[in-house]
Amino acid sequence: MATKADNMNSLDTAAGGGLVDRRQLLGRCFALGAGAAASGLAMTGQSRADGDLAQWVTQAGETARAYGMPAPEEGYVQRAVIQLYPGLAPEYGFSGTPLQYLRGSITPNGLHFEVHHGGRPQLNAYDHRLMIHGLVERPLQFDLAALDRYPMVSNVHFLECAGNSGRNAFDSGPFQITIDQLHGLVSNAEWTGVPLSVLLDEAGVKPEAKWVVAIGDDGPGMARSIPMEKMMGDGILALYQNGERLRPEQGYPMRLLLPGYEGNMNVKWVTSLFVTDNPAHTKSESGEYSELLADGQVAQFTFGMGVKSLITHPSALMTMQGPGFYEVSGLAWSGAGRIARVEVSADGGQSWADAELAGPVLSQALTRFRIPWVWNGAPTDLLSRAIDETGAVQPARTAWKAKYAPSNYLHYNAIQPWRITAEGEVENVYL
Amino acid sequence: MATKADNMNSLDTAAGGGLVDRRQLLGRCFALGAGAAASGLAMTGQSRADGDLAQWVTQAGETARAYGMPAPEEGYVQRAVIQLYPGLAPEYGFSGTPLQYLRGSITPNGLHFEVHHGGRPQLNAYDHRLMIHGLVERPLQFDLAALDRYPMVSNVHFLECAGNSGRNAFDSGPFQITIDQLHGLVSNAEWTGVPLSVLLDEAGVKPEAKWVVAIGDDGPGMARSIPMEKMMGDGILALYQNGERLRPEQGYPMRLLLPGYEGNMNVKWVTSLFVTDNPAHTKSESGEYSELLADGQVAQFTFGMGVKSLITHPSALMTMQGPGFYEVSGLAWSGAGRIARVEVSADGGQSWADAELAGPVLSQALTRFRIPWVWNGAPTDLLSRAIDETGAVQPARTAWKAKYAPSNYLHYNAIQPWRITAEGEVENVYL
Repeated sequence: MATKADNMNSLDTAAGGGLVDRRQLLGRCFALGAGAAASGLAMTGQSRADGDLAQWVTQAGETARAYGMPAPEEGYVQRAVIQLYPGLAPEYGFSGTPLQYLRGSITPNGLHFEVHHGGRPQLNAYDHRLMIHGLVERPLQFDLAALDRYPMVSNVHFLECAGNSGRNAFDSGPFQITIDQLHGLVSNAEWTGVPLSVLLDEAGVKPEAKWVVAIGDDGPGMARSIPMEKMMGDGILALYQNGERLRPEQGYPMRLLLPGYEGNMNVKWVTSLFVTDNPAHTKSESGEYSELLADGQVAQFTFGMGVKSLITHPSALMTMQGPGFYEVSGLAWSGAGRIARVEVSADGGQSWADAELAGPVLSQALTRFRIPWVWNGAPTDLLSRAIDETGAVQPARTAWKAKYAPSNYLHYNAIQPWRITAEGEVENVYL
Repeated sequence: MATKADNMNSLDTAAGGGLVDRRQLLGRCFALGAGAAASGLAMTGQSRADGDLAQWVTQAGETARAYGMPAPEEGYVQRAVIQLYPGLAPEYGFSGTPLQYLRGSITPNGLHFEVHHGGRPQLNAYDHRLMIHGLVERPLQFDLAALDRYPMVSNVHFLECAGNSGRNAFDSGPFQITIDQLHGLVSNAEWTGVPLSVLLDEAGVKPEAKWVVAIGDDGPGMARSIPMEKMMGDGILALYQNGERLRPEQGYPMRLLLPGYEGNMNVKWVTSLFVTDNPAHTKSESGEYSELLADGQVAQFTFGMGVKSLITHPSALMTMQGPGFYEVSGLAWSGAGRIARVEVSADGGQSWADAELAGPVLSQALTRFRIPWVWNGAPTDLLSRAIDETGAVQPARTAWKAKYAPSNYLHYNAIQPWRITAEGEVENVYL
């Protein structure tokens, strides 16, 4: 049997540090499985060495169940729950998707990130109403039963909190925490609902109407002003998430879904769409979600999330299993459209190779990228850099920071380097 | 405000019985929401009539949680659990996806269908091994840690039990049961795993090898022979389902995923891939999953699932809310490739109109279709008929039955008509 060195070190690299073109892998020996003969197993059609039957095949298994859950052994795969003021206001907080344990592009509903300013309201879904009023011909309200008869669309889109990854903006870092805590406020789902244009058309938007103020039915009354153009464009009133009803954390029974826009604008538990000629300048848009720039000005109404990528495998606080073959894998997305390319560097940014994108590559959706890598055991830095279909390129941290005042942590989309130490430890690092 | 009749009855129909071209709906008044003024609500930006704040906005909400669950009010959205021999062998049974409550194309993991011949084994996932042996140069075995370093792919595919919908084959019907019980053994997920070609190439398949016998680590030792061509083509060893690890019901920690092939061949809890020159003719392929034909012959190795569609909204045992606008919505799929077209009839099959397909339309994946419909309140039959990219057309029940002996219920893919009564009740019917 060919050895690891025979097989993998003879490959032509696609870029420095051991990145390999996927097509070169055909018929290669990865040598990560054990040689069965060497381990003394009998070739009996059962992989157990002693030939005995395992307990679970000699007895009846568990019966079918009405709603499935992950295996108990996977109980560690949880969202990273963070409370900003645990004693004072435990309901003010969030939970991050454990990107380090997920391998596709869809986020399962149980692990979709959540952010709450006032906790998750215990509203009565079937009594809930959405009102459309203000500058309209016919004020209307809708309940779930009515909405379920309307024309619907289904689209896969990411949601990302404007504050995601913000800890990396602080020079007191780099914080050595796992990727769910660093970058977990981004998820991806198939959203199904009624196009907002259908509902607004029915209410009859007056010519002078340019904005819609959306208000959520939670304690803080989350309120955001949204341009009419976006509402009438690709905005939807989402009712379903990966096929089933929205989860309570994601705004059950109804929320806005504005593809590519920062998370908080996708107002959850939405109860009021107030059509106006001007934005309302709510506290969330004049204060919480505006960015102080390097020149002292404030950027308000920064709707779209920037082009971004993250290597999830390997990522912070993982330990490499020794030199040899790995697949570098991660996620890329852009609020402006499709991901066009993701470049990966395994030598600290000196050279780059294109990763493979798992198709179909959808607009404003998480895209899984992958590239083969043979790690030679030496310390190095792994980086990924996304480019979207508009030509926007994910910036380096220094370039990102140059745009903003030091206090800003919103819309952080800079390149995330992971340092691999000689011991195979993976660390967060600023380059 | 325009009335229902003013708006919807003036539309040109796309086919008989009230089917409408979606483009005609722009700016129309569906009149399903309540007129807010008429219902006496104050235009205050809150949709509650009395102006009081609801209890849940005056108190702190629930805190973030590690793993999310559906809202308690959605507790009725469950799989339809059916035990064939409840007293004798409760572990022999299945649970169907509640298609009547789902609206996208992805099936959330908690609601993916399951079928077990001997129950769900309580195996030790991190001790589990997959062995590749038989006609190979290098017998190999793999555990989860090794497999997680291999190159992976992610693809959305349906799985359907060969026996799905089989109750409609029996002339003792039509059974008046909901669609999850009639047709629920089909689901759709994003599967991530290692291409089987990578693992087989590493083991070194000998030239005379033409088949692979896959064996699961459950009590019945589910075993199926799979053509080498399929294994080396698009077959994968699936490790993840909608991003997270496989659920126990779906073969955790590893299963075969053979796009388009009947469910049982996608062997769950797979532990052995025995490479051979001939099929093994296991009991599952010589008996359970072979079909007796009308001419007395038996069809063995009927791998691919046929082209099929189902209207899920409305469907059996639902009650219409009265005449007016509805969106007819359903799912279509084919084991042979992409869905090319879905035709819908609202007049019992006299005339047909093309439904809209929710994109991207993926190969061997569930595709959601939708078409607007104005029901005039008269009794009628609703039908859907799928055509795939190979030109295969979903058959009528009479044509399907003509192929098989009366005892066969496998690979039932005939058109499902739903009868709408004058009272708005929806019934299963044979046409």
